[in-house]
Amino acid sequence: MSETDFRPSVPAAEIEHRLALFQRELSLAGIDGAVIVQTADLYYLTGTTQSAHLIVPADGEVVMLVRRTLERAQAESPLGRVEQLASLRDLRPALATAGLPGGRLGFELDVLPAARYLDYARRLPTHELVDCSDLLRNQRAVKSAWELDRVREAAEMLRGVADCVQSVFRKGMTELALAAEIEFWLRSSGHQGQLRMRAFNGDLHYGTISAGPASALPGGTDTPLVGAGVNPFIGKGPSSLPIGPGMPIVVDLIGSSEGYIADQTRCFSVGQLPDELLEAYERSCEIVAEVSAGARPGVLGSDLYELSLELAGTLASSMASGTRVSFVAHGFGLELDEPPFFARGWDHPLEEGMVFALEPKFVFPGQGAVGLENSYVVTADGGERLTRAPERLIALS
Amino acid sequence: MSETDFRPSVPAAEIEHRLALFQRELSLAGIDGAVIVQTADLYYLTGTTQSAHLIVPADGEVVMLVRRTLERAQAESPLGRVEQLASLRDLRPALATAGLPGGRLGFELDVLPAARYLDYARRLPTHELVDCSDLLRNQRAVKSAWELDRVREAAEMLRGVADCVQSVFRKGMTELALAAEIEFWLRSSGHQGQLRMRAFNGDLHYGTISAGPASALPGGTDTPLVGAGVNPFIGKGPSSLPIGPGMPIVVDLIGSSEGYIADQTRCFSVGQLPDELLEAYERSCEIVAEVSAGARPGVLGSDLYELSLELAGTLASSMASGTRVSFVAHGFGLELDEPPFFARGWDHPLEEGMVFALEPKFVFPGQGAVGLENSYVVTADGGERLTRAPERLIALS
Repeated sequence: MSETDFRPSVPAAEIEHRLALFQRELSLAGIDGAVIVQTADLYYLTGTTQSAHLIVPADGEVVMLVRRTLERAQAESPLGRVEQLASLRDLRPALATAGLPGGRLGFELDVLPAARYLDYARRLPTHELVDCSDLLRNQRAVKSAWELDRVREAAEMLRGVADCVQSVFRKGMTELALAAEIEFWLRSSGHQGQLRMRAFNGDLHYGTISAGPASALPGGTDTPLVGAGVNPFIGKGPSSLPIGPGMPIVVDLIGSSEGYIADQTRCFSVGQLPDELLEAYERSCEIVAEVSAGARPGVLGSDLYELSLELAGTLASSMASGTRVSFVAHGFGLELDEPPFFARGWDHPLEEGMVFALEPKFVFPGQGAVGLENSYVVTADGGERLTRAPERLIALS
Repeated sequence: MSETDFRPSVPAAEIEHRLALFQRELSLAGIDGAVIVQTADLYYLTGTTQSAHLIVPADGEVVMLVRRTLERAQAESPLGRVEQLASLRDLRPALATAGLPGGRLGFELDVLPAARYLDYARRLPTHELVDCSDLLRNQRAVKSAWELDRVREAAEMLRGVADCVQSVFRKGMTELALAAEIEFWLRSSGHQGQLRMRAFNGDLHYGTISAGPASALPGGTDTPLVGAGVNPFIGKGPSSLPIGPGMPIVVDLIGSSEGYIADQTRCFSVGQLPDELLEAYERSCEIVAEVSAGARPGVLGSDLYELSLELAGTLASSMASGTRVSFVAHGFGLELDEPPFFARGWDHPLEEGMVFALEPKFVFPGQGAVGLENSYVVTADGGERLTRAPERLIALS
């Protein structure tokens, strides 16, 4: 392998289509151009995550200006113009050359640090800096056929979860010991390890594996279940608490392929669960089936959220997404927290090609949590299931 | 375990001391108070990472306003006043109650997203929003005895790396397969999994494990070595390339304890390495020994950087930190990219209690990279070594 042997990932036709679409969205929004710097957005629009400023005029030629490393960016990205940015002082002249000497300039203000924003504002006194994140996030929410193939591969990585858990589970093992085994299984299958979230302070390590009362603990993250965590700095996920008899185990995992992810939760139990929890698991399966079937183009995310609560019936007050967080399904792709959301107030229509992870989970303080989660793509006939692992709750012995 | 069984981590005396110090720094900087919202800073000042606004008047009582979850924040933090923040609308009145009806108000502008900054600016029209990140980062750079104990524990987690690598290495295995084994070993030892960086777009999964030519690849991250990565979206770390005969293997790992980390690199080889690489490894060991010995209070980080280049001699042009990135050592703690830096232009004096990871690495395009890394604490007698794994390069068979 030489330094020129970098492996491109996103096909040229994808990049071309995505950039053309983004340029059209900028035009429609009355934004003259955009400067894109965040990892996931850069990868989506260029195929590389090298440190760069991507200049996208609403009308004109796109150019990627690379801080580090030019040869890697050129090898990984099918873009025609990939050039060196020696200094940030060169950004303003580069914008002028790209036909953007001033005007409304889009930045990713939902993720760009304030200090950098203020620095750009100082360097670009003839531009008005505006937020273009929503344009890009909404565009990214609708997946192409190529992207769906990657999501399918990511989902496939999770199919054997029951075999894995059944083969590694040992009585009295800690949540962390179980997590170590499951993470080893995923990593050995080629998992990318690092997951990315857009939310400030957001991060996640493979998913959330928790058992018994720890699954039911409330916490600060915007997820249905949180977990006790290794320590309060991590504050979520598995802990060194042992998995005891009669406990439910919730295995919420993220698969990956070429940066794209899929999200799936399966439940296990140590011996038999109380009837109440078994019934809640059944309810979760019913909600997943009914709500996913209704996920057709034009349906509002908020309506599917309300439908989930309605189907939960008497269990609604135990539904994690009804009491602690405001959603029952979230989109995903390169990031774990993409639109669409099935959430109160998310009054946007679904579109064909959107993907979502539907996860009605029920929490029983002092006992644990149960719930099913699948990833789906929105089709004219409703949600098509992408995560294929068998759905039944498995009692471990 | 009930919902009230959360485990506190940072002792009350630590929190009290840190807050008093931060308040003094705010006063000295002419800042009337600060609002802290970022995970690592929140944990440092409160002991919890629940979603919260921590109000720190330069003079007056500190109060943490929690969005989610109050009971967990109250259980994890020894702070006296931990209260609910029902809505962001309540922030301004809460500031006024805390004696901050206006004035200069510090925010973490290096990490706070621009959109949130603009929202705070709109909500707080009588305040001047200023950056207080450097105050806090510089304070956090100097570790207490309690923090040093945690860093020592994190370093101890990495001591057995040679045993691990020697027992799991198999001829022809991929970088990723080796990484999976090493990560399993760490996770099974209680590793927190998730690492945190402050830099925009920064993240890291356990460390960087790479071998042969892939170790020598340039990339966009601010690290001496980058690696090929699983895919261009990750763009760093191990890949599915096989580890072939004659290749050096660089195992750069981060240990963890209670959120605190330690950073260590050890080298291995598949059979014998060419003399040139062996000599470079010896040079790296010499630089580490000499530069760490010189890391006394009052010495400038920039001087130790220049010393490293000088000691590299004819190898200086191959030194990763001489050609690609601008540092040969970095601080660490709750985040991987803390001050101090041994870097060109970092003209700040070291202080007793600062910790640093010193990592002179040499890159041979087409062949690979070698180098040693240890974590140290600055003492009156120079750097005291914290990472205790044996330093010799081990030939695997």
